[in-house]
Amino acid sequence: MISKTLKKIIGLFEDNKSSDIKKEINEMHPGDVSQLINELPSEYQSQAFKLLSSELASKVIYNLHDELREEILENINQKRLVEIMDEMDSDEATDIAGELDEHQLKDVLKKIDVEDSNEIKQLLVYDEESAGGIMQKEIIAVQQEMNRTEMIEHIRANYEDVEKLYYIFVTDIRNKLIGILEVSKLLLCKAEQKAKDIMNTEVIVAPVDMDREEVAGIFRKYDIYNLPVVDKDNRLLGRITVDDIIDVIDEEASEDVYRMVGLESEDKVFTSPLNSVRKRLPWLALNLVTAFLVSSVVGIFEVTIARLSFLAVLMPIVAGLGGNSGTQTLTVITRGIALGELTLHNTYKAIFKEITVGIINGILIGSIAVIVAYLLKRNILLGVVLGISMVCNMFIAGLIGSSIPVIMKSLKIDPALASSVIITMLTDMGGFASFLGLATLLL
Amino acid sequence: MISKTLKKIIGLFEDNKSSDIKKEINEMHPGDVSQLINELPSEYQSQAFKLLSSELASKVIYNLHDELREEILENINQKRLVEIMDEMDSDEATDIAGELDEHQLKDVLKKIDVEDSNEIKQLLVYDEESAGGIMQKEIIAVQQEMNRTEMIEHIRANYEDVEKLYYIFVTDIRNKLIGILEVSKLLLCKAEQKAKDIMNTEVIVAPVDMDREEVAGIFRKYDIYNLPVVDKDNRLLGRITVDDIIDVIDEEASEDVYRMVGLESEDKVFTSPLNSVRKRLPWLALNLVTAFLVSSVVGIFEVTIARLSFLAVLMPIVAGLGGNSGTQTLTVITRGIALGELTLHNTYKAIFKEITVGIINGILIGSIAVIVAYLLKRNILLGVVLGISMVCNMFIAGLIGSSIPVIMKSLKIDPALASSVIITMLTDMGGFASFLGLATLLL
Repeated sequence: MISKTLKKIIGLFEDNKSSDIKKEINEMHPGDVSQLINELPSEYQSQAFKLLSSELASKVIYNLHDELREEILENINQKRLVEIMDEMDSDEATDIAGELDEHQLKDVLKKIDVEDSNEIKQLLVYDEESAGGIMQKEIIAVQQEMNRTEMIEHIRANYEDVEKLYYIFVTDIRNKLIGILEVSKLLLCKAEQKAKDIMNTEVIVAPVDMDREEVAGIFRKYDIYNLPVVDKDNRLLGRITVDDIIDVIDEEASEDVYRMVGLESEDKVFTSPLNSVRKRLPWLALNLVTAFLVSSVVGIFEVTIARLSFLAVLMPIVAGLGGNSGTQTLTVITRGIALGELTLHNTYKAIFKEITVGIINGILIGSIAVIVAYLLKRNILLGVVLGISMVCNMFIAGLIGSSIPVIMKSLKIDPALASSVIITMLTDMGGFASFLGLATLLL
Repeated sequence: MISKTLKKIIGLFEDNKSSDIKKEINEMHPGDVSQLINELPSEYQSQAFKLLSSELASKVIYNLHDELREEILENINQKRLVEIMDEMDSDEATDIAGELDEHQLKDVLKKIDVEDSNEIKQLLVYDEESAGGIMQKEIIAVQQEMNRTEMIEHIRANYEDVEKLYYIFVTDIRNKLIGILEVSKLLLCKAEQKAKDIMNTEVIVAPVDMDREEVAGIFRKYDIYNLPVVDKDNRLLGRITVDDIIDVIDEEASEDVYRMVGLESEDKVFTSPLNSVRKRLPWLALNLVTAFLVSSVVGIFEVTIARLSFLAVLMPIVAGLGGNSGTQTLTVITRGIALGELTLHNTYKAIFKEITVGIINGILIGSIAVIVAYLLKRNILLGVVLGISMVCNMFIAGLIGSSIPVIMKSLKIDPALASSVIITMLTDMGGFASFLGLATLLL
């Protein structure tokens, strides 16, 4: 469907029919509009954004590709920016505020609604990766002595500001959170019932400085839609909604895969080539260092290779399989850590398992390799060398592929950084050393 | 916190104090109980599960590790199983039903509540990976002519069955979905207002056979909590809740990383070693084939290597960097496809970008390599060979790392299957061939 609309809009742009485009786009769902603008040829993207009403623009801008959003924010006129930010929820307005330059930000904070401006200032203080950094200030909180009618009046008065109302929060006069109340419960209760009679007091909360990955873990574990955020004295500061957590989960999943192969999170499909080069270069440079280290291991055996050149032909096999087997182990372990399945209590079991798997796979794959090598070269001893070095290397793969991320986690370093480059370096070294070393001894 | 509880419970198990454990566990939140049982030493896990009330057990069992759940289901007595399944929502009951053997399933379907049994039978028909496979039948649907009071009565009558009520669905007499209604709107409207007056008619729906990954895309795009599922005539069949979508997103993210390194989704941290071996073996065997293919490319140049053995020392550098660079490209592209950023309209741009990045990185990293190689061997020509082959190989990495997943996607094969093994094979071959080929010509 979107593909048909896309073609139509491109056609309208080619014929310069702005008012038709405006009409068409402003009737679409914000989710569709973001997708449409992201997919438009780049010459029409900013133009299309300009045609949106401020309300629609406020819902769309956050979901545009990073580089496009940056470009739009650089060139936007200030009046328009203020109008758009006035329409936003506090959490998204804060994210946009965080992307403005100092000068733009000061100006905007002066001109938008005072209440919004204060909320943004409060939220800007928190680390982007913390509960505070992803929460919104728009909440409905009632006092415990309020009865149903009073609560409904209170909700009515604040309804405009709060999107997706599922929980109402119950606080005491010091703004400390004492309970939560599902809207549906309020709908069904009697007029004289008070907040304190129907609220749920077993409240799950996020401390404001909790890491957002841990916050995502809470949503996973307790299957909730909204999570109140509190300060260290249990005072209610805001709420995190589950749709924002989906973004966090996506980003954290990308981050984990990315780190394993040495990419930075901002390096996406449509990041400009020069930016991507800049981001990938340091890691490739590190990779060059590890490659020379690996090469120096081979260098030790240069004399053997000069005598038996077929060793150079077979040695990539041992290294390659070790590397792949190590990457498999690394992936299982880092993913297990990310999803909270692997904790410090049960790690030794996991490491032991991965080593076992490595050895068994080494024996099985090694045996096939022995047969193939014998058929190719008619040399039993060569087959044996190949087989034994494979078992050794897959044992190494299981050991380091599992223990390195676990060790990093216990040192509080992101285990996903135990990237494949380190594992591959070690399995390459292990593979070359065991194969060439055994060959030097036996052949 | 959980860690303290864990120690306490283990202590109680060691002292054989079942009734204390029972009391302790049955007061905890289901999310915490699942985690606790998952982390217990294996000898206490089934025992702990037996101590749960059926209601708690119904909420816990789904979140236990796969192998533990299988073990519990194999040994559970039938009366207990029926009690537990009676407490479950239809979607989870269906998932459990899907894990039972034929015989157990038949028995259970006879003994549980007739309505539940019918719902499970209906749901078992759908593909597990489709909207139908993850939806639940528990919904509240009202007729469009109902007024507020009637709707509230209807909700009250069905409230027990439906957890997390956010939307009410409005249907016509043929059960066709015509609108949705937020509970909070119903709370604030007037007594005489009818469903049709206050409902939202722009309803986003999922067709029952839509792939669950696409369903997750809808939640991402429209930021919703609940999604109605309909058949081809727009008849309302059930709903999908956002907490189930988080599980889908986690699983799909794991699946994508897993496929890239040749792992199957069921291969987790605590899968038994033999199961893991079985699952990883076919891929490692394929890997052995590709490794021999790569090795045969090196074999072509065996004579050159016999003469210039230091080529064997340096050749892993070209192959290694090409492989890593290709894996980076592959990761950016497959992740972009998974998150819906990359569509068929804008792929040529992405491929072109990745090739550009590959060439530029090749030139930069190649230049460093040239200098290092010269310093090591005092041979300018060797440095030139190394540099040129690096540029070639990183060009290949950019080209195949981006185009292979895109081609697979257009052939409707999961692009994540364009796993690193294929990319690495090609960059290994490219690296060895260009380096050794150039060396044969020039040195």
